[in-house]
Amino acid sequence: MNTLTWVDGVPDDSPFGVHNLPYGVFTTAERPERRRIGVRIGEYVLDVAAVARALGAPSTLLEAPTLNPLMAGGRPVWLSARAAITSWLTEPAHRALVEPHLAPLAGVTLHLPFEPADYVDFYASEHHASNIGGMFRPGSPPLTPNWKHLPIGYHGRSGTLVVSGTPVTRPVGQSKAPDASAPGFGPCRRLDFEAEVGFVVGAPSPLGVPVPLSAFGEHVFGVCLVDDWSARDLQAWEYVPLGPFLGKSFATSLSPWIVPLDALQHARVRPPVRDVEPLPYLDDRDAEPWGLDLELEVRLNGQVLTRPPFASMYWTAAQQLAHMTSNGASLRTGDLFASGTVSGPERESVGSMIEYTWNGQDPVKLADGAGRAFLEDGDEVSISATAPGPGGIRLGLGEVTGRILPAVATP
Amino acid sequence: MNTLTWVDGVPDDSPFGVHNLPYGVFTTAERPERRRIGVRIGEYVLDVAAVARALGAPSTLLEAPTLNPLMAGGRPVWLSARAAITSWLTEPAHRALVEPHLAPLAGVTLHLPFEPADYVDFYASEHHASNIGGMFRPGSPPLTPNWKHLPIGYHGRSGTLVVSGTPVTRPVGQSKAPDASAPGFGPCRRLDFEAEVGFVVGAPSPLGVPVPLSAFGEHVFGVCLVDDWSARDLQAWEYVPLGPFLGKSFATSLSPWIVPLDALQHARVRPPVRDVEPLPYLDDRDAEPWGLDLELEVRLNGQVLTRPPFASMYWTAAQQLAHMTSNGASLRTGDLFASGTVSGPERESVGSMIEYTWNGQDPVKLADGAGRAFLEDGDEVSISATAPGPGGIRLGLGEVTGRILPAVATP
Repeated sequence: MNTLTWVDGVPDDSPFGVHNLPYGVFTTAERPERRRIGVRIGEYVLDVAAVARALGAPSTLLEAPTLNPLMAGGRPVWLSARAAITSWLTEPAHRALVEPHLAPLAGVTLHLPFEPADYVDFYASEHHASNIGGMFRPGSPPLTPNWKHLPIGYHGRSGTLVVSGTPVTRPVGQSKAPDASAPGFGPCRRLDFEAEVGFVVGAPSPLGVPVPLSAFGEHVFGVCLVDDWSARDLQAWEYVPLGPFLGKSFATSLSPWIVPLDALQHARVRPPVRDVEPLPYLDDRDAEPWGLDLELEVRLNGQVLTRPPFASMYWTAAQQLAHMTSNGASLRTGDLFASGTVSGPERESVGSMIEYTWNGQDPVKLADGAGRAFLEDGDEVSISATAPGPGGIRLGLGEVTGRILPAVATP
Repeated sequence: MNTLTWVDGVPDDSPFGVHNLPYGVFTTAERPERRRIGVRIGEYVLDVAAVARALGAPSTLLEAPTLNPLMAGGRPVWLSARAAITSWLTEPAHRALVEPHLAPLAGVTLHLPFEPADYVDFYASEHHASNIGGMFRPGSPPLTPNWKHLPIGYHGRSGTLVVSGTPVTRPVGQSKAPDASAPGFGPCRRLDFEAEVGFVVGAPSPLGVPVPLSAFGEHVFGVCLVDDWSARDLQAWEYVPLGPFLGKSFATSLSPWIVPLDALQHARVRPPVRDVEPLPYLDDRDAEPWGLDLELEVRLNGQVLTRPPFASMYWTAAQQLAHMTSNGASLRTGDLFASGTVSGPERESVGSMIEYTWNGQDPVKLADGAGRAFLEDGDEVSISATAPGPGGIRLGLGEVTGRILPAVATP
C-alpha cells in the first residue's frame, strides 16, 4: 500500500514514511563541497531548500550547511517546516515541482547534521549503572547513594563527535592492571561500544533560567542514536576522582538522521516506577512523561547481539534537561545530551560489550566460531532503533555504525 | 622612562608595554554592535584591523569579531602579526597613521575574546589536590593512586564561559548534608572561586594524531586567567562516580586579554621535582619544560586574600596538552584548557576559599570585621597575575573578576 505519499516505493508502513521525515545533511558526488539539508523519505533524500526555492516559499533557515539555523528557530518554526514538507510529499499537485529534488540515498554522502555545542552524557539506565558499578567498584554498593535522586551526567568532548560510518581508530593510553605496580602505555585492550539515544537542543535558553520539565518540547529539536565508544582500561585507571576523560574522548559516533521530537508522540510512555520520591523539579508523576518506547538493536559484525529497551530507562530526557539547567546553566543550539548506555535486565538486552561479556569473562560467540571479550581491530558495531508510530507502524531512527581500525604507532 | 614605544604614558616597565601586547575583543559606545580585535598597550586598546587597513597591510585575519581566525592561522601567522603590531607601536614613522586607532581602555567594552570550542579543566596542583582530597574523601589518601602518573582532567561546559565582569548568579541545586537522610534543593550554601590559568588552542590537530610535548608552542596561542566558580555542596553530592557537573557548569569566568605564548618566554621555569617517573609521552626532563613563573593574586572585596604561585604546579600545560591528545582526540581552534586551581603550600598561597577556610571552619576575616566561610551575595572576587618579562620587568595578565548575585527564586 502506497496511499500516503506520491513518492514511489514508500509503502504506508515504511519506517521512513511521511510520519517520520527525519532531517540530515548531505552532499552529492557532483557537488561534494556543498552541504545541504535533506529530509529522508523511503530510500530518498529530499533537498528541502531547493524545493522551497522552486515553490517560492521562504527558505532562509533551510539554506544552510547544517541544521543549526532551523533548530534555533524554535518549535513554531519546526512545526511549520514539518507541515510544509509533509504537504510537498503528500499532495499530488506538488509532485511535478518536488520530484526533481529527490535523490536516491545510495548516491549521497551524509554528514554530521548539526554543529555541536556542548555534549553531555548521562547514566540513566539502572541496569547499566548497577552492572558497571559492580564491575568498577567491587565491594561497594553498585549504585552510588545519589543515583536515584538525580540523573548523573558529565560533559564529554564535542570536538570528537563524528557521523556514523567514520572509522574509529583504537585509542592508546595509560592503564594499570590491578596487580601491576605502575601503569603502562599502549593500545587500548578493552575497547567497547555503548548504545545510547541522543537529544539535540534546538532553542537556546539564557544563563540563569532553568528549563522546567514542561518546556522539554520547546527546546529539544529531535533524537538520534549515539555510540559512546569506551576504552574500559583507560577509563578504569583515570576516572577517580573527576570522571571519564580519555577513555571516552577519542570518538563518539552519531546517526545521521535527526528524528523530530514531534514524530515521536506515539512513542511516549510512562517510565519505570521509581522507588525514591523525586524532588519537585524532577517530579513528572502528574505530567505526561517523556519515557520513549524505542527498541534498539545492536549488531556486531552483522550478527544481532542485543536488543536494548529504551522504555526501561529510569530517568527520562525531560528530567535530564531539567536537571542539567537547574543550576542556571544555559542551553545553546546544537547542545547534545545522550541518555547513557541503554541496558535492559537480561544479557540479551544490554547496551555494552563489558556487560554482555561480564568484564570479558564470558565472551561473545560469533557466527564464525570466534570469541570476543572486547572489540578487535576490524570489528564493526551497528546500532539501530525503531519507535511506535501512528496506526501500528514503526518509525526508523536509522543507525549508527563504526568499524575499528588498528591503533596508530605510539610516539 | 618611555623609550620603547611612542604611545604616551607607557613607561618601559609597564606591565602592558611592547613586550606583552595581549589580544582581546572590544566594542565602543558609538558602535556597540561591531566587535573588533584589539591589542592592549598601556591603558589603550589598538584597533589592529583599522591600522592594517590604513597601512594597506594584509588584514583578513584581523577583520573578525573574535580571535578565532587569527588563532587558527598557526604560529607563523601569530609571529608575523606580533612583529607587525610591535613595529606599528614602536616606530615613530607609523605614529601618524596608527595613533588615531588607539582608544582609551576606560571607554570600551571588552568581550569574550574567542569563540570557545571544548573546555577542559585539569587538577594539576599537588597542594590543591591534596587539600581537596582530604576534605572530600576523609579517611582515604588525599591523592588518588593515578594522580602522579597522569594529569587528571575532565570536560567542563563551554557554553557558560563568560567574560570577566559578568555577574555570577548563585546557583541552586541538590545537596545533602552528611547527616541528612535525603538531599534537599535550594540556593548553594558553599559558593567558592577557583584561581586558575587557562591555555587557548589556536592551531587545530586532526583526529587520531597525538600532539607531543615538543609541539605545545605550535598549537597554543596564548594564556588567560580563569575563575572556575564552584558550588561545593552541589559538587560533593553529585561528583561520584562521573565527576563534577552542575557544581561547576553555572559559570566560568575568563580574563579579557589573551597573552601570546610568545610573550611568556622569560617566564618559563622547570616545574617542581616529580617523585614518580613520568611515562615517555609526559617526560619533559630532557626538554626545556613549560613550567611558568606566574604570580597570581586573589582579592576578595578588594582585600588581598592569597598569592598563588603558578610555578608550583606539578603538571605543566604542555604535559596536559600531550595527555589530552594522547588517545588521538583532536584539537579545535578555541579549545580552552585550564590548569586547575593554583595552590601553593601555605594558607596565604591557596587558590580557593574552601582551602583558605579549611572547609569553612576557619573563616576569612574581612577588613570591615565580617567573616566569610564561603562567598556571600554581593561579594566580589578578582584574580590577577603577572609574569617575568625581559630586563626584570613584569608583564600583566590582567584580571578576571565577578560579583555574586542572589539566587533566582526556585521554580
